[in-house]
Amino acid sequence: MTIKTKVPSDIDIAQQAKMKPIVHIAEQLGLSEEDVELYGKYKAKLSYDTLLQLQKQKDGKVILVTAINPTPAGEGKSTVTVGLGDALTRLGRKTVIAMREPSLGPVMGVKGGATGGGYAQVLPMEDINLHFTGDIHAITAANNALAALIDNHIHQGNLLNIDPRRVLWKRTLDMNDRALRNVVIGLGGPVQGVPREDGFDISVASEIMAVLCLAKDLEDLKTRLSAIVFGYTYDRKPVTVKDLGVAGALTLLLKDAFKPNLVQTLEHTPALVHGGPFANIAHGCNSVMATKAAAKLGDIVVTEAGFGADLGAEKFFHIKSPVTELNPSAVVIVATIRALKMHGGLAKDQLKKTDLRALKEGITNLEKHIDTMRQFNVPFVVAINRFATDSNEEIEWLESWCSSQGIPFALTEVWEKGGAGGEQLAEVILAEMEQTKEVTPLYDVTQSVEEKIEQIAKKVYGASSVEFSLKAQKSLEVVNKNGWGQYPICMAKTQYSLSDDPKQLGRPHSFTLHIRDIVPRIGAGFLIALTGDVMTMPGLPKEPAAYNMDVASDGKALGLF
Amino acid sequence: MTIKTKVPSDIDIAQQAKMKPIVHIAEQLGLSEEDVELYGKYKAKLSYDTLLQLQKQKDGKVILVTAINPTPAGEGKSTVTVGLGDALTRLGRKTVIAMREPSLGPVMGVKGGATGGGYAQVLPMEDINLHFTGDIHAITAANNALAALIDNHIHQGNLLNIDPRRVLWKRTLDMNDRALRNVVIGLGGPVQGVPREDGFDISVASEIMAVLCLAKDLEDLKTRLSAIVFGYTYDRKPVTVKDLGVAGALTLLLKDAFKPNLVQTLEHTPALVHGGPFANIAHGCNSVMATKAAAKLGDIVVTEAGFGADLGAEKFFHIKSPVTELNPSAVVIVATIRALKMHGGLAKDQLKKTDLRALKEGITNLEKHIDTMRQFNVPFVVAINRFATDSNEEIEWLESWCSSQGIPFALTEVWEKGGAGGEQLAEVILAEMEQTKEVTPLYDVTQSVEEKIEQIAKKVYGASSVEFSLKAQKSLEVVNKNGWGQYPICMAKTQYSLSDDPKQLGRPHSFTLHIRDIVPRIGAGFLIALTGDVMTMPGLPKEPAAYNMDVASDGKALGLF
Repeated sequence: MTIKTKVPSDIDIAQQAKMKPIVHIAEQLGLSEEDVELYGKYKAKLSYDTLLQLQKQKDGKVILVTAINPTPAGEGKSTVTVGLGDALTRLGRKTVIAMREPSLGPVMGVKGGATGGGYAQVLPMEDINLHFTGDIHAITAANNALAALIDNHIHQGNLLNIDPRRVLWKRTLDMNDRALRNVVIGLGGPVQGVPREDGFDISVASEIMAVLCLAKDLEDLKTRLSAIVFGYTYDRKPVTVKDLGVAGALTLLLKDAFKPNLVQTLEHTPALVHGGPFANIAHGCNSVMATKAAAKLGDIVVTEAGFGADLGAEKFFHIKSPVTELNPSAVVIVATIRALKMHGGLAKDQLKKTDLRALKEGITNLEKHIDTMRQFNVPFVVAINRFATDSNEEIEWLESWCSSQGIPFALTEVWEKGGAGGEQLAEVILAEMEQTKEVTPLYDVTQSVEEKIEQIAKKVYGASSVEFSLKAQKSLEVVNKNGWGQYPICMAKTQYSLSDDPKQLGRPHSFTLHIRDIVPRIGAGFLIALTGDVMTMPGLPKEPAAYNMDVASDGKALGLF
Repeated sequence: MTIKTKVPSDIDIAQQAKMKPIVHIAEQLGLSEEDVELYGKYKAKLSYDTLLQLQKQKDGKVILVTAINPTPAGEGKSTVTVGLGDALTRLGRKTVIAMREPSLGPVMGVKGGATGGGYAQVLPMEDINLHFTGDIHAITAANNALAALIDNHIHQGNLLNIDPRRVLWKRTLDMNDRALRNVVIGLGGPVQGVPREDGFDISVASEIMAVLCLAKDLEDLKTRLSAIVFGYTYDRKPVTVKDLGVAGALTLLLKDAFKPNLVQTLEHTPALVHGGPFANIAHGCNSVMATKAAAKLGDIVVTEAGFGADLGAEKFFHIKSPVTELNPSAVVIVATIRALKMHGGLAKDQLKKTDLRALKEGITNLEKHIDTMRQFNVPFVVAINRFATDSNEEIEWLESWCSSQGIPFALTEVWEKGGAGGEQLAEVILAEMEQTKEVTPLYDVTQSVEEKIEQIAKKVYGASSVEFSLKAQKSLEVVNKNGWGQYPICMAKTQYSLSDDPKQLGRPHSFTLHIRDIVPRIGAGFLIALTGDVMTMPGLPKEPAAYNMDVASDGKALGLF
């Protein structure tokens, strides 16, 4: 990409940026020094008192940024989220961005952070990508405290009659560590605990991350933690955190992590970066606390959901919105020429040359997500996130495709130009938000689990049928026997395809969605429907990003991105 | 103890205390807001720039607080450290306390924190006892990043020829979790890594904790991390972090954790609470960075070392002082009537009644530690840390025992009275510090490993001989073959006895010290001599402290201590 010679690396841009003291950013939002708890000069948590007081204020409007199905070409959803926030600020709108915070594991593994890119970044990017304010470490600690307390209970007489073969709760580390996926613990004889098969997940896959991101206040946090089902007794009764009597201790470990983190963009737009649950086995968006606080503090909130609209946006509407009681006023669907061409069958190394045939083929993926947003009855705009390799011919074709079908669209160049590159998008979306539409969920939580899954499969994915494995059918019996059928569904599906086969790009038709298992997440308040294999503990690549990292003698981070 | 009805619980005292903003405490030390990085209003890290600038200033004097061998009766070493700091402040001396930061694992397990007690505490105690500024979480992350990078290297072709059966590096969690002591990892088939036996330690037992606490600056930190030997090749050559190429990444993960944390006592004496390595398999005192910074900022530093003087003080002189180039100007040996009576043979439930016979029997333990301090040629004071159950008769006997032998002593009542209760001790120690003595190490690092161990065993423990197991002899060969013989010794011995048998209280005579193994810690820069079993991953008790913890709806911690 020739543009790379003009735009410096993310870390160079970030380290050369002149941040405002975070208390000044707080002041922009009408907050005083008393309302924030500083973590250095450029990070702060909103105090819990302030969060409680904010509840009385009225809500701003929410813009949800989602995307087509991701491809290795990259779509730049976080970059567009940041750039759109900056653009709205430039247009004089009081805007607050709400985003997920990144996990350390991938940072050590694969080059590339989660704080936007180019001239559309949140800062301080090194801190946010490393330990930030310790939220994920606190989640790890709470997760592993529960694990230790469970195994200790079993070891110390097992009054609750927990079946060690049916403990569902895994330990977690915020690290990509494949060797911990399958382990045997408790070896070494009677004083070293009770041996059993176990495994570790990455911390962001912990149910505690999902719980923290869905709780409305500390009481709700404790209630959800109490409800976590971590295993079954020998007579197959569910055992909860409440039964073990440690919901208070877990809440205590999480009480600071629960408060949203305030940072800023390169252009000083306030951003609440908080929580980061997986977008497959969890719902994949930042915390309810952050989105709610952003809506109280800003007239407009720009927020994002993980992966494509089939996973992130669907869960935003069905899982998160009912908790926040805030539906998006409009949705941005990010698409790139490169990614659409991959959906049209091109390989990653063939993307540089103009290929209208592949683009026309791949547009079907975008088309399906547009169809889904129309079903949700939500205003939307297609953001064409421009890359240097895109030809004018391709851009023009995509624009005319949108125009001819009455689809609102805008070109964005936020990576290269920051907020200025997002003004067109900001204007189009502000216009779309004027419509007063009522968002329509695609299923009703009172429906049966099978019906809810079928609604998502058919309406959002375009599947023709759903098949439940024997295991899934057995799990369904357990779910129904325990009265858990009334929860919304959290689909765990490959992000690369609308189907459950990651190789089926574009818009697959007449396919069957295979439900492998149903996993209750009673604390989080959803039922995971597993399709295919879902990786909950990533591995490191052959050449981990860690090999390039260093610190200068003055303490400056080197080689981070 | 009747005194409990007068003195409220630690957490009640702590939560009712009126702290000064930490920037005011910094100002007391001549530091501006620019010199500190705030973590909330009452915690801060010293900026790395400031730490570098401080290096030019001259050092204050160091008082080391140590104790007789600990007993279940409790000695109150941290409480005396805090109270003495406050007392010196009351006497107009510019005093800075340097202490270890507590591990979360024990906090969840056993009621009782590590921030002093009664009216001699460092604040904010809840924060310090929970996640504090995230230092230990960063150490956990760095430790486990290295572990994941090692197993990933083996999985991805093993260019370094690492023998999976000879990986020494364990993963860590900051949790008491006995079920992780012995595990098998890498199960589940070829794509899940290489199966091998492994185990987890508690984070504070990580070599990275020892490294962080002994490094003088970021360069030294990286050098020490580089030198860590994490395993051996199939042809028995040591493999280091440098060989793996990840010292930079580990340093990056630790760059903030490396900066000392500034907090305050109940009486607003500045305290640097930073680092907390084990006192058996590591050297057991707070970071070199904190002690050095405290010496630059204060005229007097009050600091402590873990366990009794046989472990903590010995290692302070032989391992830490050579790095800081700061020998203590005086040592406080904390003793209690209760603990001395236990050394004299009384059980814990018999301590309330006056028992001069047991006291006279148990005084031998104190006597040996006094002897050791005399060998080190360091001025010292015996601090009799008064408990409500101590009778006047017992106190008088102990005082007259000290007087008759010309041993400087003072009564302290800091738990009940704060700094005021430590003024007598402060005055006695200030007088003792006037002596100009030159501390004499008890061995020379150029001696052989066996000789160094023998010096410690005979001079500090009073052993008559040392026996090396076959395993230890083999390990010694490896140590010598690799040229590691020049490092100081870090004894891993039970804290309860001067011998390696925890049941031998008082002052055992004519005993043999058994060396089970020698473990190189090349990053930390010492050789661990293991005697008996050393627990590096504690377990939770039957009724963990976690069962009592909670959070009020306004976010206040409940039931922490």
